[in-house]
Amino acid sequence: MLRVGVIGYGYWGPNLVRNFMESPHATVVAVSDFDERRLAVARTRYPTIETTTDADAIIGSDDVDAIAIATPVSSHYTLAMAALASGKHVWAEKPMAASVAEARSMVTAAAERGLTLHVDHTFVYTGAVMKMRELIDRGDLGELLYYDSARVNLGLFQHDVSVIWDLAVHDLSILAYLQDETPVRVSATGISHIRGGQPDVAYLTAFYDSDFIAHVSVSWLAPVKIRQTLLGGSRKMVVYDDIEPSEKIRVYDKGITVASDSAEARHETLVSYRTGDMWAPKLDATEALGAEVAHFAACIAGEQVQRTGGAAGLAVVQILEAATRSMNGGGAPVGL
Amino acid sequence: MLRVGVIGYGYWGPNLVRNFMESPHATVVAVSDFDERRLAVARTRYPTIETTTDADAIIGSDDVDAIAIATPVSSHYTLAMAALASGKHVWAEKPMAASVAEARSMVTAAAERGLTLHVDHTFVYTGAVMKMRELIDRGDLGELLYYDSARVNLGLFQHDVSVIWDLAVHDLSILAYLQDETPVRVSATGISHIRGGQPDVAYLTAFYDSDFIAHVSVSWLAPVKIRQTLLGGSRKMVVYDDIEPSEKIRVYDKGITVASDSAEARHETLVSYRTGDMWAPKLDATEALGAEVAHFAACIAGEQVQRTGGAAGLAVVQILEAATRSMNGGGAPVGL
Amino acid sequence: MLRVGVIGYGYWGPNLVRNFMESPHATVVAVSDFDERRLAVARTRYPTIETTTDADAIIGSDDVDAIAIATPVSSHYTLAMAALASGKHVWAEKPMAASVAEARSMVTAAAERGLTLHVDHTFVYTGAVMKMRELIDRGDLGELLYYDSARVNLGLFQHDVSVIWDLAVHDLSILAYLQDETPVRVSATGISHIRGGQPDVAYLTAFYDSDFIAHVSVSWLAPVKIRQTLLGGSRKMVVYDDIEPSEKIRVYDKGITVASDSAEARHETLVSYRTGDMWAPKLDATEALGAEVAHFAACIAGEQVQRTGGAAGLAVVQILEAATRSMNGGGAPVGL
Amino acid sequence: MLRVGVIGYGYWGPNLVRNFMESPHATVVAVSDFDERRLAVARTRYPTIETTTDADAIIGSDDVDAIAIATPVSSHYTLAMAALASGKHVWAEKPMAASVAEARSMVTAAAERGLTLHVDHTFVYTGAVMKMRELIDRGDLGELLYYDSARVNLGLFQHDVSVIWDLAVHDLSILAYLQDETPVRVSATGISHIRGGQPDVAYLTAFYDSDFIAHVSVSWLAPVKIRQTLLGGSRKMVVYDDIEPSEKIRVYDKGITVASDSAEARHETLVSYRTGDMWAPKLDATEALGAEVAHFAACIAGEQVQRTGGAAGLAVVQILEAATRSMNGGGAPVGL
Repeated sequence: MLRVGVIGYGYWGPNLVRNFMESPHATVVAVSDFDERRLAVARTRYPTIETTTDADAIIGSDDVDAIAIATPVSSHYTLAMAALASGKHVWAEKPMAASVAEARSMVTAAAERGLTLHVDHTFVYTGAVMKMRELIDRGDLGELLYYDSARVNLGLFQHDVSVIWDLAVHDLSILAYLQDETPVRVSATGISHIRGGQPDVAYLTAFYDSDFIAHVSVSWLAPVKIRQTLLGGSRKMVVYDDIEPSEKIRVYDKGITVASDSAEARHETLVSYRTGDMWAPKLDATEALGAEVAHFAACIAGEQVQRTGGAAGLAVVQILEAATRSMNGGGAPVGL
Repeated sequence: MLRVGVIGYGYWGPNLVRNFMESPHATVVAVSDFDERRLAVARTRYPTIETTTDADAIIGSDDVDAIAIATPVSSHYTLAMAALASGKHVWAEKPMAASVAEARSMVTAAAERGLTLHVDHTFVYTGAVMKMRELIDRGDLGELLYYDSARVNLGLFQHDVSVIWDLAVHDLSILAYLQDETPVRVSATGISHIRGGQPDVAYLTAFYDSDFIAHVSVSWLAPVKIRQTLLGGSRKMVVYDDIEPSEKIRVYDKGITVASDSAEARHETLVSYRTGDMWAPKLDATEALGAEVAHFAACIAGEQVQRTGGAAGLAVVQILEAATRSMNGGGAPVGL
Repeated sequence: MLRVGVIGYGYWGPNLVRNFMESPHATVVAVSDFDERRLAVARTRYPTIETTTDADAIIGSDDVDAIAIATPVSSHYTLAMAALASGKHVWAEKPMAASVAEARSMVTAAAERGLTLHVDHTFVYTGAVMKMRELIDRGDLGELLYYDSARVNLGLFQHDVSVIWDLAVHDLSILAYLQDETPVRVSATGISHIRGGQPDVAYLTAFYDSDFIAHVSVSWLAPVKIRQTLLGGSRKMVVYDDIEPSEKIRVYDKGITVASDSAEARHETLVSYRTGDMWAPKLDATEALGAEVAHFAACIAGEQVQRTGGAAGLAVVQILEAATRSMNGGGAPVGL
Repeated sequence: MLRVGVIGYGYWGPNLVRNFMESPHATVVAVSDFDERRLAVARTRYPTIETTTDADAIIGSDDVDAIAIATPVSSHYTLAMAALASGKHVWAEKPMAASVAEARSMVTAAAERGLTLHVDHTFVYTGAVMKMRELIDRGDLGELLYYDSARVNLGLFQHDVSVIWDLAVHDLSILAYLQDETPVRVSATGISHIRGGQPDVAYLTAFYDSDFIAHVSVSWLAPVKIRQTLLGGSRKMVVYDDIEPSEKIRVYDKGITVASDSAEARHETLVSYRTGDMWAPKLDATEALGAEVAHFAACIAGEQVQRTGGAAGLAVVQILEAATRSMNGGGAPVGL
């Protein structure tokens, strides 16, 4: 039974605590937050959990095996490094750190101490994303051609990170899981509509050595909530709509065939179109966080290989950092 | 009664001929096409129309007041210049020309001869786009914040122009009509999945001197047809879905309020969210091309001011050309 | 080449003429209508077709092999009987006649003269309905459990027949094709919101000897257009949405399993639920009327067996007549 | 502070307990259930609540002001009568009783003792239904013409009541709130697909003295979940889709105009169609049960008039009982 201390009981922390508590593999022994009122809420729900405003007390406690960090990004590095130094495994919210340098140090520190550093790329543990990975692994999609995602809604504006760090991070974590190749170059554009604020509407293109391309549109200023991703393959294509209550994944037997070597094709490329059935596979409806908690415990126990460890988290932060640089340059490409 | 000669009877030409024929303001006297079989189709439908494979014969004919050009982009310039030289008014399909230099020459030639050069930005004449303009003019949307459009489907791949020239041109023509400001810089990315082919998936960001930003996603490789545009204003926001049979325009009384000068706001920007009713105004259901034909005739008669004349067409080609340059540079911004 | 005379060039007649004209198996030689203006429209489109206000002239003509009747229901009987008496094959719009007695006489007259009496149950020839029949024939749906359809919109109010004869007739024709069993009893309810008018909102339940049940909701007073049918089987279930541009048919691998003979089930029926994938088969996109014209010609040539002949048309009229009677009795069941 | 004892902690009981506990107007002092395991769940969540398998102990307790009954319908009467006899106010789940006789006795008993008998018609307290009532009250819809609802899904099959008592009860409770008129006659049809089971697919038409008609389709055997209601008025019409995450209510400015007294109308009724904007008002997003708990407490305190008291509950049971009788008679109308 993994004993976890959770730092941060704001927006996401309560989900972590609930899932650790409901897991047969883990339990929460302590929660910390700057805000006494948040701790009162935690105590009402879980009278057995110890609460404190002092994160260091939890990090240093002998009753704790792992530290889950659900605080603003800027504090991840300091808290994670202290936890690792104290011999604790770490569960870090995404993005794992505020810079590549920080993320790299965290990966190194965990490796040196033989501790598990887990990054909470929650979407990777959903039935929908796991189904897409399965379709890829089975060869159903053929060669991957593109990933194109729109992730927009009204709010929540943040003042320390841009909408790319807040929303595109989800797509980058999904991509890191689905696509074995890593991008070589990024171009991003965006704008802030608030004086002195972070970009609230932004676009990111990631280039790869192959013909694959990834694009993500994110916004805090959209009147409707959209969570739609197109994943194109040479054999089949997927529409992944996370707003759909069921049938989140639709697989289209559609595509093109290029007759590139026929006699006629000398003069013009002949593209023909293929359209067949659509198919919506039943998805695993288990709550993603519950599966992720089990995976975290199994990784610590040496029973599973990390699916979203520090390396995956670092890869995502590298793209985020490059995208910020590109966005400051009006879209000028930034190599990775 | 305007006497029109139509050059090109392929995909779009028949729509032009039908609308000119059904208009009380115009009639078609001649049609030309390289393909005799296409001309046979035209003759069956309209026994009174003269047909020829010789475009110049129509351009030079005294029975014709105006030439409508519905051929591939590469031939627009030569045909339009000949028509203008022959004293004919010109209706050019979009994009109006293959380069800024060509488009500029066409505009100059038309101006010098006092002829009407019309560019067929069809969407500008739809009930949906006219309603958006009306909402802007009435101040309902407030200050425009962004335009974000997805225009994707499977095919039709073209081998002479990229998907930006084929599909994004629609959004750029709508933007040129809705937004009085013109962009100052463009960043575009894209990729071709066919050896030696044109980019088939592409993304374009247009920057303006104000806080407005425009973004267009286009693709010939999507398994589903999407025609969705978000138009954000400081007061209200529009979702324009052209696939919807009715209710193409939805106006959301949603937005943010920034408390930028309060005492608390010294430390952090306070953004609050406003959500109210949604409203789908009834749209004019007249076929856009019919209204456009009437407008064309009225412009020639000096009764109306051109809504999509050579200047609007040129502005669109300028962005297309810059976008192509940016796309070749991996997204590096190109000034306008 | 079948030579057809078309009587009635109002709402549906033009579709018949176009499809007969475009068919390699048939041609239209004459069209009649009471309204000279409608005939003028026909002549403009098809200069070769003879037009007349005298239906009898067409019925008696030696140049005509078959008569297509696209007039109001009340006149079907007289026109069809005259055509059959004149040795012509008949294509009758649906419902085929205004009463069971009329329909029965028509069937008898055609049989006696060895002529083909075809009823235009158009939906039977759509890709969607043919696919449902195919799924049933393959056993994919298992035993049929229910058919439940909503067919509502605003208008078009008719003053000679109720909304059941106008709209439910479509569902009854589909049912007659999909379900080999025929109903034994009908209950219908409805109301007219116009003084002295026909019922404009109505509901019809058809009972069968088996556990199958069919229900149809129809309305001329709905603010939105709905064309949605659920077809439930013991193995799979279909949602057929005719408004969908593509994916009109969705097959759900869902259902129940009844453990009726287990020990526990002595006390309570144990129902367990099964949910699996959803699948939207690609449908034949051919225009239904075109396929139907080819079928009509083939039936006359003795090459195909009638799919929607007089017997199918009669079965539908029997239900319509019984439904009217039940509706007048406030829903009291009427045997068939 | 109202002290509540809750009987039944199965499917709905936990929602009641949560809302009573979170209300500033009420608290739960005791919970009973036959199943010890359910009580264990309740204790874990609410350590302060007393639990027992003996409902009578709660009913007789002096610490309790009101009894909430969330047990199967068959037990409502006995429990409610005991509670009223013990001087307790009663909150009964819907339908309030298994027969009209039972419901009437409950109403009488509550009246005699001056106690509040509340029926949990939850939908009446939703933002969507309250908005429809508001639209009616303001005259926006004009004269009500029809209510047409589909409420279908897969499961949950019940073995003591039919799908009408399980699902149509929701629509009847909404209708009782929206429509001041009460129905005079009911016709219902339905079928059971399980040997010895209750009808699992059913249809109900309610007739009124006016031109208003109500129809409800319910099913436990549908592959998809549908919760769609059309509410037609002479001025505007509403589509209420409870599956929609937002915009559950859409108001259509559509309808017909009947020119019944014009000269031309002597010969045929002239119906013209009116189509205008659509409007989706923002809805109150408060949880319905929370508002209902506050209302219950206020009714007991004599501060509010009951919105869904025993009379409303009785009216619903009357229709349910008549519908069952009509269904047994194959749709034969049953007066109310």
